[in-house]
Amino acid sequence: MSFPSELYASRMRQLRPSTIREILKVAAQPEIVSFAGGLPAPELFPVDAVRAAADEVLTRHGREALQYGPSEGFPALREWIAGEMQSRGIQASAADVLVTNGSQQVLDLVAKLLINPGDVVLTENPTYLAAIQAFQALEARFVPVPTDEQGLIPEALPELIKKNRPKFLYTIPNFQNPTGVTLSRERRIALARIAAAHELLILEDDPYGKLRYRGAEIPPVKHWDESGCVLYASTFSKTIAPGLRLGWVAAPREIFSRLLILKQAADLHTSSFDQRVACAFLTANDQSAHLGRIRGAYGERFEVMDAALQKEMPAGYRWTRPEGGMFLWLTGPGELDGLELLERAIKHQVAFVPGRDFFPAEGGNNYLRLNFSNSNPARIREGVRRLGALCRAD
Amino acid sequence: MSFPSELYASRMRQLRPSTIREILKVAAQPEIVSFAGGLPAPELFPVDAVRAAADEVLTRHGREALQYGPSEGFPALREWIAGEMQSRGIQASAADVLVTNGSQQVLDLVAKLLINPGDVVLTENPTYLAAIQAFQALEARFVPVPTDEQGLIPEALPELIKKNRPKFLYTIPNFQNPTGVTLSRERRIALARIAAAHELLILEDDPYGKLRYRGAEIPPVKHWDESGCVLYASTFSKTIAPGLRLGWVAAPREIFSRLLILKQAADLHTSSFDQRVACAFLTANDQSAHLGRIRGAYGERFEVMDAALQKEMPAGYRWTRPEGGMFLWLTGPGELDGLELLERAIKHQVAFVPGRDFFPAEGGNNYLRLNFSNSNPARIREGVRRLGALCRAD
Repeated sequence: MSFPSELYASRMRQLRPSTIREILKVAAQPEIVSFAGGLPAPELFPVDAVRAAADEVLTRHGREALQYGPSEGFPALREWIAGEMQSRGIQASAADVLVTNGSQQVLDLVAKLLINPGDVVLTENPTYLAAIQAFQALEARFVPVPTDEQGLIPEALPELIKKNRPKFLYTIPNFQNPTGVTLSRERRIALARIAAAHELLILEDDPYGKLRYRGAEIPPVKHWDESGCVLYASTFSKTIAPGLRLGWVAAPREIFSRLLILKQAADLHTSSFDQRVACAFLTANDQSAHLGRIRGAYGERFEVMDAALQKEMPAGYRWTRPEGGMFLWLTGPGELDGLELLERAIKHQVAFVPGRDFFPAEGGNNYLRLNFSNSNPARIREGVRRLGALCRAD
Repeated sequence: MSFPSELYASRMRQLRPSTIREILKVAAQPEIVSFAGGLPAPELFPVDAVRAAADEVLTRHGREALQYGPSEGFPALREWIAGEMQSRGIQASAADVLVTNGSQQVLDLVAKLLINPGDVVLTENPTYLAAIQAFQALEARFVPVPTDEQGLIPEALPELIKKNRPKFLYTIPNFQNPTGVTLSRERRIALARIAAAHELLILEDDPYGKLRYRGAEIPPVKHWDESGCVLYASTFSKTIAPGLRLGWVAAPREIFSRLLILKQAADLHTSSFDQRVACAFLTANDQSAHLGRIRGAYGERFEVMDAALQKEMPAGYRWTRPEGGMFLWLTGPGELDGLELLERAIKHQVAFVPGRDFFPAEGGNNYLRLNFSNSNPARIREGVRRLGALCRAD
């Protein structure tokens, strides 16, 4: 049977396999220096401590760790997360926390709750690729918010809200993916105020907040949220390990209860085993020492990449200098075609993600996203040397 | 801020917290004999073998097990699953397998791909509660297919298809949840034939297929699918442990590629750690011996419950006698109100799920679903004694 043609709804048509994804499969070969993936450094994973945690969980609570669990999440982990959020300046209790499969699932659940085909989502421009995909799966329409080197510009919002009646604003205030840009304190305060005044719901995605390697910490937008219009999402993917697929959202009560039903419908609950292993790891190990090692390594890698880019890149290229996170954002000359450059770069054994796909609307051909967390300093220098040679040859 | 009223779309209104769910939270107390949950027997979980598998995975492949992985799933696990499906009579290769967070996520992804608000899904009547929830989250409309003690009646389909133009048919052919009924071989053949002739997509959900404790195995509907109109879903929740949240779907190529994009948008991928632990467990341990123990225990528990019901229940009650799985389905007198009975039953320290919520349309007040996998024989006898006393007092 050919697949019934009537089933090819707009949703099916939209879901085309990505060209870049196919190209980047090649980038997994070891001889290629890849700045493409958004991967943490695996040599910093706390493998031994996780093994000890898994052993303890299965020895002491094996049956519970392998049984179905509550859709909300493992209670002790929700408690830990609430404490963690409090330390970030957020008033939240365990009852506000829904544990998810990475913070990616938060994007999916929120989209499923709020988006009907054609509904508007406000985003930074560019924004996180997989957020675009998650919202697109529900046929959202994207309206970009003007941004500069301090993040999105809150003053632009009232007009956009009036014109587009958006369902929510999606923002990554810390070391944004893909640009590395951080939303300033003043703008966070303004954003919370404007959102409250216009009843705008904000989905604040904060996967990288704990990865600040220089500069002073700024509280999340949620810290200034007095009216319950901010959903705060974060993850253990960058602080423990992404393979466990553990994230969370803290949401106002009325939204929480609906997200919980959608979570149950989506997959009943997140792995009981992974939740308990993470919880055992978190309580048995010094997190600030562990995070200090990650921040130290990522800070060094950023400096190495920044210095190498200064040495290797020709005139006409500039890039962001993030204070944390895993990415920097490179702007090339206006005529640069990032996808075409990637095809040539792979032949020269270096890879990155062309910027185009991070723009929900048009434009963006002359941008590249470079990841610096997943390569050691020597590989970073070599990769930037290869990239620089290609760009200079243009 | 009160949550913006314009956001209370039909989806928000539909997502009401369930009364039964709240009542059943009480049933978790140890003094209550609960036939309510769909829980496997935790004393049969292979805890030691899973601990050995976790230890091996973290010792030998720690970094890979904790890193991001492919959205399709861990390759070696997909291979194992393909072999497993072949042993069930399905022609499938690893490339057809998408690993998911339990088979529940298959329901979510398929619904997201195919259902627009108001689209029709054909289901057995009654059908799996969480399937109703997953499809309802996308605002599906349900049309029940007439069923009898051999499952759904394929001959009823052409008329239903013509009238409703359904997006797909959802069926649980083995030891159905909630009824325990098994679709006969003849009907499976007829179903595959009618589906092909009418280009009807079938979602075959087979979580219990390996839990047959008597009678001869019948191949899945997918075995007779020559035209690629059957999606086959199953899970490790009943054969290893549900806490790992591992399931899968085998889908025709054009659907697979779209489900893969939706899986990536939903949560990037299923836990790398859990997938590798399951794979190490599956390859290091004798599955037929392990499954034999589960089948033996569940078969015994069914017999104990059946005998206890015969002894305790008054006239006017009858129930199904499944050849496998975890549930039987009890029909009371027409005037029975299952929800009201549950409220009284909890006071007498026994619990079940009232049948009402398993019916996507109207009716069903006089049914109860009883789980027999999660209580030992002594508890089953005691629970049925309490239930029988209540029913006899009516």
